[in-house]
Parts: sequence; structure tokens; C-alpha cells
Amino acid sequence: MNTFGHLLRVTTFGESHGPAIGCVLDGCPPGIAIAPEDFAHDLARRATGKTRHTSARHEADEVEILSGVYEGVTTGTPIALLIRNTDQRSKDYAKIAAQFRPGHADYSYWQKYGTRDPRGGGRSSARETTLRVAAAVIAKKWLVQRGVTVRGCMTQIGDVVPRLHDWSAVEGNPFFWPCAEQVAELESYMDALRKSGDSVGAKVMAVADGVPPGWGEPIYGKLDGELAAAMMSINAVKGVEIGDGFASVAQLGSVHRDVMTPDGFLSNHAGGILGGISTGQQISVSVAFKPTSSLRLPVQGLDVDGHVVDVVTTGRHDPCVGIRATPICEAMLALVLMDQALRHRAQCGDVGEMSPRIAGNINITGAKR
Amino acid sequence: MNTFGHLLRVTTFGESHGPAIGCVLDGCPPGIAIAPEDFAHDLARRATGKTRHTSARHEADEVEILSGVYEGVTTGTPIALLIRNTDQRSKDYAKIAAQFRPGHADYSYWQKYGTRDPRGGGRSSARETTLRVAAAVIAKKWLVQRGVTVRGCMTQIGDVVPRLHDWSAVEGNPFFWPCAEQVAELESYMDALRKSGDSVGAKVMAVADGVPPGWGEPIYGKLDGELAAAMMSINAVKGVEIGDGFASVAQLGSVHRDVMTPDGFLSNHAGGILGGISTGQQISVSVAFKPTSSLRLPVQGLDVDGHVVDVVTTGRHDPCVGIRATPICEAMLALVLMDQALRHRAQCGDVGEMSPRIAGNINITGAKR
Amino acid sequence: MNTFGHLLRVTTFGESHGPAIGCVLDGCPPGIAIAPEDFAHDLARRATGKTRHTSARHEADEVEILSGVYEGVTTGTPIALLIRNTDQRSKDYAKIAAQFRPGHADYSYWQKYGTRDPRGGGRSSARETTLRVAAAVIAKKWLVQRGVTVRGCMTQIGDVVPRLHDWSAVEGNPFFWPCAEQVAELESYMDALRKSGDSVGAKVMAVADGVPPGWGEPIYGKLDGELAAAMMSINAVKGVEIGDGFASVAQLGSVHRDVMTPDGFLSNHAGGILGGISTGQQISVSVAFKPTSSLRLPVQGLDVDGHVVDVVTTGRHDPCVGIRATPICEAMLALVLMDQALRHRAQCGDVGEMSPRIAGNINITGAKR
Amino acid sequence: MNTFGHLLRVTTFGESHGPAIGCVLDGCPPGIAIAPEDFAHDLARRATGKTRHTSARHEADEVEILSGVYEGVTTGTPIALLIRNTDQRSKDYAKIAAQFRPGHADYSYWQKYGTRDPRGGGRSSARETTLRVAAAVIAKKWLVQRGVTVRGCMTQIGDVVPRLHDWSAVEGNPFFWPCAEQVAELESYMDALRKSGDSVGAKVMAVADGVPPGWGEPIYGKLDGELAAAMMSINAVKGVEIGDGFASVAQLGSVHRDVMTPDGFLSNHAGGILGGISTGQQISVSVAFKPTSSLRLPVQGLDVDGHVVDVVTTGRHDPCVGIRATPICEAMLALVLMDQALRHRAQCGDVGEMSPRIAGNINITGAKR
Repeated sequence: MNTFGHLLRVTTFGESHGPAIGCVLDGCPPGIAIAPEDFAHDLARRATGKTRHTSARHEADEVEILSGVYEGVTTGTPIALLIRNTDQRSKDYAKIAAQFRPGHADYSYWQKYGTRDPRGGGRSSARETTLRVAAAVIAKKWLVQRGVTVRGCMTQIGDVVPRLHDWSAVEGNPFFWPCAEQVAELESYMDALRKSGDSVGAKVMAVADGVPPGWGEPIYGKLDGELAAAMMSINAVKGVEIGDGFASVAQLGSVHRDVMTPDGFLSNHAGGILGGISTGQQISVSVAFKPTSSLRLPVQGLDVDGHVVDVVTTGRHDPCVGIRATPICEAMLALVLMDQALRHRAQCGDVGEMSPRIAGNINITGAKR
Repeated sequence: MNTFGHLLRVTTFGESHGPAIGCVLDGCPPGIAIAPEDFAHDLARRATGKTRHTSARHEADEVEILSGVYEGVTTGTPIALLIRNTDQRSKDYAKIAAQFRPGHADYSYWQKYGTRDPRGGGRSSARETTLRVAAAVIAKKWLVQRGVTVRGCMTQIGDVVPRLHDWSAVEGNPFFWPCAEQVAELESYMDALRKSGDSVGAKVMAVADGVPPGWGEPIYGKLDGELAAAMMSINAVKGVEIGDGFASVAQLGSVHRDVMTPDGFLSNHAGGILGGISTGQQISVSVAFKPTSSLRLPVQGLDVDGHVVDVVTTGRHDPCVGIRATPICEAMLALVLMDQALRHRAQCGDVGEMSPRIAGNINITGAKR
Repeated sequence: MNTFGHLLRVTTFGESHGPAIGCVLDGCPPGIAIAPEDFAHDLARRATGKTRHTSARHEADEVEILSGVYEGVTTGTPIALLIRNTDQRSKDYAKIAAQFRPGHADYSYWQKYGTRDPRGGGRSSARETTLRVAAAVIAKKWLVQRGVTVRGCMTQIGDVVPRLHDWSAVEGNPFFWPCAEQVAELESYMDALRKSGDSVGAKVMAVADGVPPGWGEPIYGKLDGELAAAMMSINAVKGVEIGDGFASVAQLGSVHRDVMTPDGFLSNHAGGILGGISTGQQISVSVAFKPTSSLRLPVQGLDVDGHVVDVVTTGRHDPCVGIRATPICEAMLALVLMDQALRHRAQCGDVGEMSPRIAGNINITGAKR
Repeated sequence: MNTFGHLLRVTTFGESHGPAIGCVLDGCPPGIAIAPEDFAHDLARRATGKTRHTSARHEADEVEILSGVYEGVTTGTPIALLIRNTDQRSKDYAKIAAQFRPGHADYSYWQKYGTRDPRGGGRSSARETTLRVAAAVIAKKWLVQRGVTVRGCMTQIGDVVPRLHDWSAVEGNPFFWPCAEQVAELESYMDALRKSGDSVGAKVMAVADGVPPGWGEPIYGKLDGELAAAMMSINAVKGVEIGDGFASVAQLGSVHRDVMTPDGFLSNHAGGILGGISTGQQISVSVAFKPTSSLRLPVQGLDVDGHVVDVVTTGRHDPCVGIRATPICEAMLALVLMDQALRHRAQCGDVGEMSPRIAGNINITGAKR
């Protein structure tokens, strides 16, 4: 189960400190222009070592295209992407091999498989998400050609929330934070946290604009269901919301329901999805990231023989994994959308020809999304 | 995409007011004793018409076993379950056919398919969940034989939260509410809400005890990822949390990480899942339900020609769909767990023979789960 | 694994002598007109009891549409079809329950599941294929709208082969035999065989005309690969050929390769498929059916305790299962083609817009197919 | 659709003359010892350039293990294998880029995707099968630990058939031919064929011994159905048979049915599979390979503009692709068997505990398989 997607299928492989990580993107339509340098921007956005607030792994993350692209254009055959691991520092993890870090997948992998690759978290390392970001570069290109754009930002870190939501601020700071005036405050907060050896959680939002109505499949292939699975598959995620999410619990129906007018919807509590199918409004998903479990703060743990030991993690680790998560959430949103778009085209590709759509369709979906 | 599960596969079919609803449960091991009357208890728990707080559909929901069971025992072949729709009242929905109810899947189905079955919500009706509950009766039986039990309760309705969490209270009231002394208050609350013609959201928790460590598959078949998709596939769900969920965002890592001792874990912030794999602790998932969109309160909407109309829903509808959701969330938890258990047995069925497990395994997982 | 297809998915359920058999056809596009009476023609073609040459089960095989069709048109939601078993004669099979018939799935089911439904072969009965034929009625309708027609005939029975291949003769005799002048001979042959209590094998061909070039997916979703799996899933099938099939073994490459001219291909040794993708020529698949294993001729066998017993099958059984196989092979061909067509539209739906096709495309594929 | 298998999943990628080919083997149990040198034997068996009878590509086919193996043992995470393409000779294929070779996938890829990688056949090259053989090395190891062995041989080339079937002769000649005294004759035959510039077809058999009864899944996951798909996915395959295959057509049921005795089956016409499930006898599958379509003999063809051209293939090509096919057929058999074995363990892993198996089971399956 290292594959996701139904028509657009991403298979990833590789351990944090093995020879390489890679992915195979299968089912991609032919005719998309792709060059190795296309991956640089988004990989840099998620890269470790970008700022002092994230862990100190220094790698180029250079993507080699092994297949599926001929003369710069996708051919319809599987696209394999490879990134060599060059900065592995296996020694950092030598001691941890015989111990279980509380809150880490060390223990559950060991129980499942009877063995594990302890180097840098092995398969459970967030390094795997690099390939999702790479694969999504292709998906984003395809979506943009159809007028669909995907972006994201951080919406909470610890108990700090943005005072403003200004999309233009997001790419100007290392936190993907949508309020420029709070960035200095966050810098201080993270510095203090890193010094303390502790970590903290975060909340990230990803949105897609321009998604036409009709993407998504009832009942078990719902767009929101697949987004939930996709987001929950990211390391450290403990919660997913669509639209108003858990705030809906305390809402009245008369408030929650989004009124439609000939000029568009008057609100978007639904997050752009009804019955598992896109409505034409902005798709909105929020994701909760737990605080990193690998801390410099010692903690009581167990070793593989069941003895009590003191566990201290000395390698590089982010004080907040959520900081680098924005491009990853965007990636999963883009990949799910493209897969659903292909499936919609397959089943309903000639709906427009056969059945009249609602009059004024363009206005309705265009106004408020 | 009306199928979910990888080895244990549930396919459902049927519309709210069509001739019947049904499901096919494929991949079930042979040798499980099943009788038609086994379904009655859980179906009654989710049934409509149970109390004045839920909508007034009066059906027996009698399950007919069409296949896969011989002389009262599963044979390993697909188990088809059928429930006839007997109380259909199609006339209630005649007017709604040409209108879109704000907040309802009417609109998105119409946009996707160019057509829809308007009777009672058609395929998008929560009636479909009846079959999930039925299929899960079989899964729960299989799990109980392995020491795994699944249960659930409501943990919020509107802005009311339980004052106590007493599992013994849950089955004694129509809300699956874990605090007996609040039930009268909830009754009044719901009565007032029903009179007002409005609706409200709810939060439901489902837990599984006795799950051994090792169930779940990295990376895209994670136990929590599949739980998120399963829960999000239920009607009206807008959010899913594992363990502490969104509360993790404001937690420090030193607080969140669950310390292991030879006598077990000292806490369960993780909700029993690390790296997508069960740890042996209680699996815990929480689900946000939005308020029903079909209200007696009039609202401005559109008809299929794009004209503004007043929309009033006159049929029977629950003022809080979350009230009946507890058995449904339990069902999805049970089905996901059984599917994962079978997959774990397939891949790692001989791990115990090959590799030493951690000493004191039983104590660790037994103490605090 | 009672489901096949990737986008157009057929799930069947039911045992020969259980309450009912049925199927769920998922992924079907909306807008296809379907009425219960549409199924009669093809079900009659495969029906038992049609002539003295097939077994004596007398049932109407009435199809009830349980879901997915509203006001006579498919809605895009799963289509469930149900056929009640009315002529079950369970007593015929009482003795066989404790015995294994040589050459029958009795034994392998027992070994796999530790149990089995012995009534009429249970799940392993060819009765299951009724639903494939029913589901394919819908697929054939969709294909015909796109200019694709599917038909079949018998091409060998025992060691008798057609002297002529005249498609117009096929539907005029109970054997689907393409040579009218041999029908009387076949009638005598089958009468003698039935009297002797023995059975014989058969070979059936199914072809599709009008398939455009481009359907099929390398490498593991090849059109021929999926046809092979589909045909081999039919009861009693022991071999599958595409185009010249095993005759290709003794051919020279200079003979086998089908020369292309501006007016079309000059031959069709390939059976319309190259590299797993349709070429625009006629798709041609041949299928080998073994002789029925349930015979009135006694044979030494074993009972469930491992003791030697005489096995005599006294129920109704066809002396040649291949006689009824033509509509089943057609059905599998139609279902595979429609699934592939939907997948092709998903991935390559805009190839025509982006890339110039070969000049004279229509002539090439039109001339010789 | 570049993935096959349900629990044991093989995804391949790469073009004949791209930078590399590779595969990801997912779902493999942990604890299997694997070293890079384990792949050498089977890769050499299928390698090009082995004898003068196969094409002249000279590559080491060195397998790099990129993931899923730690300290020489599989960890349960996806195993990625990579082979760099070092001997690409793109110039050989320059002219062919604008032409369609009759009988080659050139044309169908072009029609499907509107583009293709013309270098060495691109994705449609038999080079892709290298990875299947590599992946199957791991499957064979796992199977052997369970007493299951897989082997193969050629059983026809052109119209030459073996005079004897002597397994001990198979590995002693470049044709995998089971009759040593015919090898010289075959050498002359192939030399003459190569000189003529023509090619010929072949038939290959693969068998598995030691398969216990019970592997395989009705109805659409039948062991024979999946074998048929697996074999048909190999380049140039036009037919698949299980057991007696097409010879069954002319057999009487009284001859075909394999009689069971307390000492085992008396024959194996069924090829070890009944109802899609293994019987405990030898699994036997035969495969028809068409003659290579790339010939030095000129032929009339079309170019991409639809003009008539003379097509001559000047690169290296095998006069009989079937010669190298034996290890590939073995590989597909091994991969399908292991996938089915895992699925059987998942669903029926405790059948033995619950239900009595037939007495004398070991003798029955042991005697004649």
C-alpha cells in the first residue's frame, strides 16, 4: 500500500537514509511539458535546511526523470522520479536503533514487521513526502491548464493564529504565514522553542480555486473522503477538516447551508464539496499536525528488550514539522484533484452533450468561489 | 466507487426511495456464524423513527441474506444483504425535484451527472449507511472473536458537551450520550430545535479496544488514513480526528508523546496509532457532523432553470443527523479494522515465528489501552 | 475478488441454489436508457432449457433493477440487478454434498474454505454467468452508441469444425454455429453424446467491430491481458487466444505481421491488438471450454472423509457447456471494452486536440476491420 | 496500469533506451534475505546477447536495490530495483521514428497517446520484462521456503516439438529445450532463420510444483484468470492455456476429468486448477509467442503522415522472442502464486483450525503432483 490514486497513481519508495527515494507517477496524460528544473521551486519550499527553523539536512534534492518523458513531454507511460540521498549522517541514529522513541513510529513498525530500518526513521521519515511534492508539480501543471490553482498556508502554530489572512504574505516568510506583521513574533517563538528542545503542533490549510462542479464520486470515492485519506497519510497528521470542519458541530443548519443565487453562493461553509462532489466553489481543507516526537528533552522509554531507558534524540529535527507541511498539503490536494478530474472525464465526459446543465451555471460557480 | 476496503470489500447500492438498498460484503473469511436476526440490534440503534428526535420513517429494515451463508455459516463467497424500501412516501419529494436545496447534494449530483433521482435524496440519502451498519455486524463478530471490541458515543451536540464520560450511560438514551444527567436537558434542546425548524451539528467518537499492535500499512494504507476516508464517506461529515486531533496543534511535543513503560503507555494522545500502525492502545477517532441542510425554515434557492425560488423542505428530516451517527461510525471503524487485520495477516502472518517481539509485549499493550 | 473492471466494475453474488443471484454494475455513465425487458434477449440466448441440448433448468431469469436507474435512464450511481432462483431442486444434489466429483470445483472449494455450498455447485455454478450477460446488455448499449458491436459464435465442438463461416447462420441454431448445413449433424452428435452420459469440449469466438484505435493500457492493463483474464474467469475455460493465437507459434514473422496500407490493413493475424492497444481492426478472441465434469457415467471418487466412493451425477447437466457460452464470451468482451474505453477517455480524452493523428486514419482502420 | 498484483504489487517503469528501467515490489513480507547478486542468475537466463540466437544488446543488467532491504533482509516496505540502460544505440532507431513497423506497437501507441518514444520500442520493448524477472527472484525465494518451486521450458518453436520431455536438459541449452538431442537441429534452424532475416513463433510452458490446495479466488481473482492476464501481459504473447488447454475442446468429459484416489490424482488434465483454485497438483500453463515483427526483410508500411514507405528494421532483434521467454513466464507464474498465497493466508489463514480438512489430504495432493 505504497500507492495512492485510482487513475493517477503515485507509488513512492525509499527510506530516509537508504541510497535513494523515488516515485512512479502512473496514468498521467500525454503531452505535458516537464523538465527536471520544474521541480526545484516546490522542493525548495518544502526543503529541510531552508531556515534555522527547520532541521539541518543539506541536500540538493535533485530530481532525475527516469522514464515517461520524451523530448520534454510526457508520453502517457509511467513517470519515474529519483532523488539520491546524499547527506545521510547515519551515525546520528546509531543509538536509537535499539530504543523506541515515545510518540514515534519506531515502535509500531517493530511490532508489525519484527524489524525496521532505524536510520533516520527509515520509511516513516517525512523525507518520503518529497516525492509527493515532486509528483504534484506535474499535477499542478495539468490543473493550471484547466484553470485550477492550488495554494496553502499555515493557519495556527501552537496557540498562535493569524491576525489577518493575506495570501500575498504567505510566500514571503519561512512559515507560510498569512500575516506579515506576526512573522517576527513567530521567529522569536520558534527560536525559544528550539532552544528548549521541545516542539509544537501546527495547522495548515490548502485550497483549490477554479475546480468546476462535478468532481468527486459518491459514495466511497468522495472528493472529501479521498482528501481526508490523502492528508492523513502525511506524517504527524492527526486531523482533517473540510470547510468549516469541527466548527460545524456548533452551527445551526440555517447558518451552515450556503445559499445559492444567480450570482453565486453567498457563503462557503461547505468548503466547496457537497455529497462528496465539488460545487464549483473554492475547495478548502485544513490539517492538524502534532508536535514532533523526536526531542532533545530526555524521556523515559523502552529498548527492544523491554528495559527502561532514557531516550534523547540528538539528530536534526524540526521543532515544528508543520512549518514544512504547506507544500505537502498542497501536493496531496493537487494529486487528489487531478485523479478525480480524470475519473470524472471517464464517467461523465459526455454529460454536457446529453443533458442540459443548469442555466446560468457559469455565474453561479464563478461568483463566489 | 461504491466499494471500499482492500481485502474485505463492501459494495453498496440503492437509493432512498428505490425498490431496495443492499450491499455485497466480499472477502469475508469462512466459518462465521450469521443469522438474519443478528442485524436487528445495530440496525435498531441507527433506525429512523426510534424516538421523536429523529425523522419519522417507519420501516422494519429487515435484512435478507441472499448469498454467502450456508447452513448459518459464512462460506467465503460474497455475502449479499438486501433491505426492501417499504415506506417511501415519494410524494413528499415531488416539489423538490426541480429545486436545489442549499447545502444539499442535489446540486452537485445534478452538475456531475446531468440527472439525479430526487426521491428522498436518492443515492445521497443517509439511508445508504444502513448497509454499512449491517455489514459491520459481521465484522464486529469476527473482531470480537479476536478480542477486539468497538463502541461509540456522542461527545458534542451544538455547543453542549458531556459533563462526565460514562460508557455505561451511552446505550440508555437516544443520543448515545455518555452522561445520564444531561439527557433531559438534551431532550428539551432537541424539542426546541425541532419546533424551530432548524438543525444543529454533532460530534461522535468511536473507539476500539483490544486491537493488537501492528495493524495498519504505511504509507497510503495507514490505519488512520483509511479511518479518515471511511468516516468522511459518511453523509454530513466535515472533519475527522485521531486521538487528540486538532488539540495537538497547541500541544508541546513533551506533552503529546505517550511515554512507554514496562507496564504500558502512560497516556494515549496518539489515539492508538503511530506511523499509521496500531500501537496496542485504544484506537480513538472523532467525527464532526454538520447540521442537516433540509430544513422547514424557508430559504432562497435556485431551480434547475437557474431561477430564484423559495425552498422549504416538508418531508421528514432529523434536526440532528449526528444522533443516529454513532452506530455508523462504529461500523466504519469495525470494517476498516477487519480489512487491516486481514492485510496484516497476509503480509506479516509469520512475523512472530521469524523475529523476536519486544519482551513484555503483552504487558505493554495490555496495561493502558 | 468477486469484482472485475477498473472504472466499470461488475460485482456478482449468489449461489446456484440460494435465494437469488445478482450483480452491481458500478461506474456506468449516466444517461443510458435501460428497461427490465432489455435483458430478455441475451438472457434467453444463454438460458438453460432452451433446447434439448442443454440442461433442464426452467426459470424465467427475470431481472429486477434495484437501483441506479431513474425514469428509465441510468443516473451514474450503481446499478443493482437481481434474479431470484425459483427452480432450485436442491434434492438432486443431496448425495453429492459429501463427495467430490472428479474434475469439479467441489474439491478445491472444500480445501480452500473448509466448507462449501453443495447445492447445484453453489458459487462455482455457471449460473453466476447469467449476471455477466445481464450487465453486458448495458455495456453493449453504450458501445453500440459509439459504433462498436460485439458478436460471437462457436467454432469447434469436439473435433467438429465449421465448414463455412457465415455470421448470418449463427443465431438460427441452438449451437451458435456459423454453418447452417452442419446443424443437423451437430444435433445428432449431441443426442448421441447425451445418451452416452458423456460430455465434450468446445471452442467459442467473440469479436468486436468498430473499436477505434487506442483502447487498452500498457503494460499490465493491456486489452488482451484483460480479455484473457475475463475469459478465463468463465467456468470451464482452459485457454484463450487473441487473433491467430497458438497458430502464431508456427508462423513466420513475414507472414504474421499485418501490412498497413492507406486503404487499411491487409490481414488481421493480430486480432486487432498490438502492444495491448487496439489497432482499429476487428478485435478477435477465442476461448477453449473443457468438457463438463458432472457426468452420468460413474467414476471413482473420494468422499469428504477420504474414502473411495462411486460418483454419479444425477441432476441436470449440459453435455457441452460451450453451447451456452457464446453470449457469455460476448458479455465479457463487451464489459472489458467499455471499461477500457472509459479509461482511455480519462487519460487520453484530449489527445486529438493536442497531437495530430495519422493522416488517413479513418481509411486505415475502416477498410479491413 | 503499470502495476499488477493485489497484495504483492509490482510496478514497473522505464523505456528501452531511457536512462533506466526499474520496478517497485510492494507488499512483500519482511524477513526475506536478499542480496544484489541474487538477481544475476535469472537475469542472465533472460539476458540479451547470451548466444548468437538472440539480439546483440550487451549490458550487465546490474540491479541496484534502492529501498526495502536493510542489512540484507526485506523490511516489509517497498523494494525498489533499478537497472541503468548503458548500451542504448539510439542511432539504430532514428529512421524508424517516423514510420510504423507492421505488427509492432508503434502504431497503436501513436494512435493512443498521439506521441511515443521511438528509441528501441520505448515502453513497448521487451526490456521491461527484465524487472519482472528481477522481482520474481524475491517471489521465488519466498515460495521455495514454502516448498513451491517454479520452472519452465520451451515446448515448440516454429513447427518443431520436443521428442522427449527431459527437465534435466532444459538448462543445458540456449533454448530451454527439454530434449538434448534436438539442440543441434535447433541451432541450424535458428541460424538459417537469422540469415533469412525472418522470425518465428514459439510456445513456452511454466509449471509450479508443491502448490498446496486452496490458492486462488473465485470468481474474478481465479488463479487461472490471473495467470492468463499475467502471461498475456508479456510482449508478443497471443495465447494462454491451463493444463490441456485447447486440447480439451476435443476431449470427452470421461477422459478429461482427473480421478482422485487416496493415493492422489490419476491424471492432471486440469493443470492443477479447478474452479480457479489450486488442487494440490502441478500448476501448468502454456503460452504462445508470435514471431517478432521487427525484421530485416523489407515490407510496405506507412509513415506518420499516412504515406506508403518501405520499412526495414536494421537494429538488433531476436529471430525468435520466445527463446528468452522461459524465465519471464516463470517470473509471472511465481509472482501470481505469491500474491495468491498471501491473499489465501489473509482470508483463510485459520481454516485449518476451524474446519476439518479431508482425511488423507497429504497423500492425495502428494502422490501425483
